[in-house]
Amino acid sequence: MSEMILELINQGKYNEAKKEIVTMNVVDIAQLFEEINRQKLLVMFRILPKEIAADVFSYISYELQRYIIESITDKEIQNIINELYLDDTIDFLEEMPSNVVKKVLKNTDETTRKLINQFLNYPEESAGSIMTIEYVDLKKEMSVKQALEHIKETGVDKETIDTCYVIDSMRILEGVISIRKLVLSEESTIIKDIMETDVVYVHTHDDQEKIASLFKKYDFTSMPVVDNERRLVGIVTIDDVVDIIEQENTEDMQKMAAMHPSEEEYLKTNVFRLARHRITWLLILMISATFTGNIIRKFNDVLQSVVILASYIPMLMDTAGNSGSQSSTLVIRGLALGEISIKDAFKVLWKEIQVGFLVAAVLSMVNFTRVYFFEKTDLMISLTVCSTLFFTIILAKIVGGMLPIIAKRMKIDPAIMASPLITTIVDAVALTIYFSTATMLLGI
Amino acid sequence: MSEMILELINQGKYNEAKKEIVTMNVVDIAQLFEEINRQKLLVMFRILPKEIAADVFSYISYELQRYIIESITDKEIQNIINELYLDDTIDFLEEMPSNVVKKVLKNTDETTRKLINQFLNYPEESAGSIMTIEYVDLKKEMSVKQALEHIKETGVDKETIDTCYVIDSMRILEGVISIRKLVLSEESTIIKDIMETDVVYVHTHDDQEKIASLFKKYDFTSMPVVDNERRLVGIVTIDDVVDIIEQENTEDMQKMAAMHPSEEEYLKTNVFRLARHRITWLLILMISATFTGNIIRKFNDVLQSVVILASYIPMLMDTAGNSGSQSSTLVIRGLALGEISIKDAFKVLWKEIQVGFLVAAVLSMVNFTRVYFFEKTDLMISLTVCSTLFFTIILAKIVGGMLPIIAKRMKIDPAIMASPLITTIVDAVALTIYFSTATMLLGI
Repeated sequence: MSEMILELINQGKYNEAKKEIVTMNVVDIAQLFEEINRQKLLVMFRILPKEIAADVFSYISYELQRYIIESITDKEIQNIINELYLDDTIDFLEEMPSNVVKKVLKNTDETTRKLINQFLNYPEESAGSIMTIEYVDLKKEMSVKQALEHIKETGVDKETIDTCYVIDSMRILEGVISIRKLVLSEESTIIKDIMETDVVYVHTHDDQEKIASLFKKYDFTSMPVVDNERRLVGIVTIDDVVDIIEQENTEDMQKMAAMHPSEEEYLKTNVFRLARHRITWLLILMISATFTGNIIRKFNDVLQSVVILASYIPMLMDTAGNSGSQSSTLVIRGLALGEISIKDAFKVLWKEIQVGFLVAAVLSMVNFTRVYFFEKTDLMISLTVCSTLFFTIILAKIVGGMLPIIAKRMKIDPAIMASPLITTIVDAVALTIYFSTATMLLGI
Repeated sequence: MSEMILELINQGKYNEAKKEIVTMNVVDIAQLFEEINRQKLLVMFRILPKEIAADVFSYISYELQRYIIESITDKEIQNIINELYLDDTIDFLEEMPSNVVKKVLKNTDETTRKLINQFLNYPEESAGSIMTIEYVDLKKEMSVKQALEHIKETGVDKETIDTCYVIDSMRILEGVISIRKLVLSEESTIIKDIMETDVVYVHTHDDQEKIASLFKKYDFTSMPVVDNERRLVGIVTIDDVVDIIEQENTEDMQKMAAMHPSEEEYLKTNVFRLARHRITWLLILMISATFTGNIIRKFNDVLQSVVILASYIPMLMDTAGNSGSQSSTLVIRGLALGEISIKDAFKVLWKEIQVGFLVAAVLSMVNFTRVYFFEKTDLMISLTVCSTLFFTIILAKIVGGMLPIIAKRMKIDPAIMASPLITTIVDAVALTIYFSTATMLLGI
């Protein structure tokens, strides 16, 4: 279908295209718009009904938003901003250069301008910066009938009416009630008697990670945001929370791979920024690996006399690193999802010791078979390699399991204690055990 | 507050405790129940109103669910199952041992039993296995008034009424309409004229990952599931999708850390299973690292004459591994979020070459300064180490960036191409470059 519409637009049959477009889902329209030549896009954008145009605007890419704002008239900007939900306006303004922001602010009324400025001032990733102010508020004295009438009058401009918020004359949050409960109740029922008073809410400065975990815990689709006096100032909706969850996961994965976390899409990030995000940790880890090198240097004599020992270094280092990062990944993830907490430290320790023992036993035996029986390596060397492997794996599991918990205890992000750092630490341990065992067993 | 309730329960004041409990959020009640002694828990569970009891039941742990089912009467089981939404029943039955499942099935009527068996037969992680059948269906000839009355009559048992589904007499899906639109429309309006006909739906056998990505794309809160004849059979709701997103992320992280993915919570998984999930990949990677060892063995002569070369092996291996896994993590994540696709292969390649060049230049220079000027290492050895570092980083970035895309192209999960595998491959490359350069520059 979108092929056909593209065809119509290319032939300049804008009105016919419009007839098809208005029946489409706005997300699909936005996707279609990314593919049209920009001149034609502007024509199409202008002939769409203004509610649809604004909806589509909130789903297109930042580049396209910028192009449209820079190309349309002040009056048209006013139309879009009036139709947009405040959280979408904020999302888009946060990504625009200052000349575009100025052009938009110039075309909004005093009240909206103040609101926008207030929202842009909330700390990044706080409840304030992601909330919307388009919610339905009710009074507890209203009957269900009055409430439904109030919703009918004001609901068109609200982002969601699925949950309504009951406030007093000072805007202090007193309860919540779902549209479901309203629709299913008798018209004469008073809101006060059916609203939920055990309301879970967040403060404007609460971090988005906390918000996401509350949504997950309670299966909410929206949640109220209050100020210090418990006055209702906005709501956060589930669609934004889903984005936050993915964003937090991306950031965790980036930290776990030793990168500076970034929200930007890979293909849209320029090369210098990508390089900058990667260099810091690589430098830190490179310098740390020097210490591991120093261990080898200390044992140069051992190595000189039994040079074959060097050929097992990669296997020992890799297996130690992998064993450690398996444990750290599970614990980091458990901490992030709230399945593991600091007080579980001993449980984790005990578990990792046991798992480490099992894994170490299997791997050392397989390795001994390979090294001694298949490669026909000297017995003492085989024993050195395999006993090192055994103890290293157990230690790697313990270090991998405990470091994230220790980090959390010290209020450092556990995700930083992932593979790369664990690998560096565990490498040093592995080589120390290796050469000490060699000195002992081989009598060098 | 929950302290006080625990106190009341411990003193045996169950009815007073009940009065407090019924005002609480069911998720919090469930949390409270995990902390009570099991005898008392059973008393509390029995005196709760049955809708609340069933709601709480769907939020407590599987262990507690099992304990309750094994302890209560057949009649009580019937009450719970009748109140539970079908998807919660399925979730819980999937985790129970067969004697519990039998006990439950024995206490459900013919129709429910058939439904449960049908649901238990849908493939794991398919739309069928996560959908619920408690949705509101309307007919397109209804007026808004009739629709609202219909919802009022039947809505109490539905999991959500936020979106209603319009079907014909053969149950074929014809459109959707939100409760919002119903509430905001005139009573006399006919559903047909205001429903959305451009409906996005999934099939019973579609994978949950696909469902999650559609929810993210369109900001849905629920979505219809149809069979092969496009007949509506159920809906998927956002609360389940949020869990799916976290589960998919956990699985990806586990795969990226060379583990067999598992849904089970770390603390609840027994030691043998944890060990089994980790051993396979550790064995594969250990054996692969043997090849890297063979490279060193091939260059034993070089190493014997310049044994100091060995002390730079950890730094070279670690930096190469980290550089590669940075790139692979970004690309794997980009592929998972749909920000990168197979056709972007060349864009990724070109980006990684440029980033690799920048990162390699900075790291080699820092390293040369350290090795040559601070450690006063021989110039030729310093040059060997730093030129190896330079070329290895660029190659590691290319391998790390491309392997996940190649995997996707070959229909292998890109997450498997993460740090551990990249590290093993890149180690071999690093050491080959290292010893070849040494042979050349040092004239051995």
